[in-house]
Amino acid sequence: MKIAFIGTGVMGTGIVNNFLKNGQEVTVYNRTKAHAQKLLDSGAKWADSAAEATLNHDFIFTMVGFPKDVEENYFGPKGILSVAKTGQILIDMTTSTPTLAKKIAATGEKIGIGVLDAPVSGGDIGARDGKLTTMVGGDLASYHKALPILASVSKKVNYFGAAGNGQHAKMANQIMIASTMLGLAEWLTYAKASGLDLQETLDTLSAGGADNWSMDTYAPRILKGDFQPGFYAKHLLKDLRIALDEADKLQLDLPATKLAEQLYAKLTDDKGLGDLGTQAIIKLWKQWA
Amino acid sequence: MKIAFIGTGVMGTGIVNNFLKNGQEVTVYNRTKAHAQKLLDSGAKWADSAAEATLNHDFIFTMVGFPKDVEENYFGPKGILSVAKTGQILIDMTTSTPTLAKKIAATGEKIGIGVLDAPVSGGDIGARDGKLTTMVGGDLASYHKALPILASVSKKVNYFGAAGNGQHAKMANQIMIASTMLGLAEWLTYAKASGLDLQETLDTLSAGGADNWSMDTYAPRILKGDFQPGFYAKHLLKDLRIALDEADKLQLDLPATKLAEQLYAKLTDDKGLGDLGTQAIIKLWKQWA
Repeated sequence: MKIAFIGTGVMGTGIVNNFLKNGQEVTVYNRTKAHAQKLLDSGAKWADSAAEATLNHDFIFTMVGFPKDVEENYFGPKGILSVAKTGQILIDMTTSTPTLAKKIAATGEKIGIGVLDAPVSGGDIGARDGKLTTMVGGDLASYHKALPILASVSKKVNYFGAAGNGQHAKMANQIMIASTMLGLAEWLTYAKASGLDLQETLDTLSAGGADNWSMDTYAPRILKGDFQPGFYAKHLLKDLRIALDEADKLQLDLPATKLAEQLYAKLTDDKGLGDLGTQAIIKLWKQWA
Repeated sequence: MKIAFIGTGVMGTGIVNNFLKNGQEVTVYNRTKAHAQKLLDSGAKWADSAAEATLNHDFIFTMVGFPKDVEENYFGPKGILSVAKTGQILIDMTTSTPTLAKKIAATGEKIGIGVLDAPVSGGDIGARDGKLTTMVGGDLASYHKALPILASVSKKVNYFGAAGNGQHAKMANQIMIASTMLGLAEWLTYAKASGLDLQETLDTLSAGGADNWSMDTYAPRILKGDFQPGFYAKHLLKDLRIALDEADKLQLDLPATKLAEQLYAKLTDDKGLGDLGTQAIIKLWKQWA
């Protein structure tokens, strides 16, 4: 079984490393070749374009930055769909739009190619440790074929039905996380301004009804002044914009998600801090600037 | 050691029951006597006012609804401070304002009475099981004297320093919870409108970075259509108003908390649903009305 993997950022690198460790044959392509060098040193092969990576491979994965990058890698002149053939299965792991996922799937269906959207949660550590949570949408036959390979890098793989539904599930995840991050930033700021011992307050909140994963993960980093990305602020902003765009299509008002989008836009677009981790949202308050 | 307990709502009843089980002598007072009847049947004594309950007791607890009720029970004509004497320790477990906690403590200090603010988290189940998380502010000597009795109904007791700091810590807790509830309501609504399987989505989100106590506790109730109160929506609204008022005094802008206050006000004041549990916030979306 031959795997092509397009996009060797932090997430892609972690996943490909696990494929290689499991003895899979992997070809990689990335816009910046230097970022793929470690994988090439570990035995991955190089392709000069998404199209070249696609040729003669069974599973073609993409995990790139933004929906426009997904679009280009699938529909561009040297893109996957310029050469893909019946029998191949295309899997987009990027957190991208449900609408684009449906478009790729519809195109694939016309030419007999299996297409799945399979965004993940679990971050860089989940990718490195092969313990991602993978949310899949697309045709069921392709899902069954892809399941062993997805399971090999995941602790949990869930199938959500039609194309785009993997992305919808991921959006639900990001909507939850965004509000949690705001609550975390606001209580830490309130507690600091009130003169409370922050570690003591954190220990207390963690023991009860306020407990959550984001707090357990990011509050200690904030207290140490560590704003490095586990997950980029600019990527959460992208995700929230996708969620709000989809919500618009569903005629849904999501005021907390909208507020989170505004605050992450302030951090990313106005303050230029989008390359920090999502916990840097707290820098919007002068107590932490 | 003789305990007076003023306020026999769900929380107070749970706590007093544990005091009685531990063999303590407890006198109770409540605005509506009928709500104290079960405790009287279990061996608690009755007092006709807060003042009467205070006389000849070592620890005088209050756990009532709103700051105005706290005010009345302490400063009213038949209130605690009309009769309290040196050596007694007064402990307010109501989630109330840090400002009022400081006022009671300052009054107590003048006449040699120990005063603690000791709001709790853990809800009705925590109260029933003696597993509250108790956040204490006030003078250290009184804290040390009260610790054994507080610990007897708590899984965790934390001391936060000066009077009002227990309330500040509780506010931090409520700020965190409020945003979590909004995120929960928004993802469930988004997922429902997108046509996802909600149980499957919940299972997926619980396994990763979106996990939190509110979701684990309330999402299953929402999916069953159970909007009964673990914690009253109207009480969370009260808490958020206290938090925002204190934040104003600290010149802090807390937009997510403000949004939560607006939405819980809509639920409680506009729709008259404040006697439902906090999870009823999701009823603001027509998908759940």
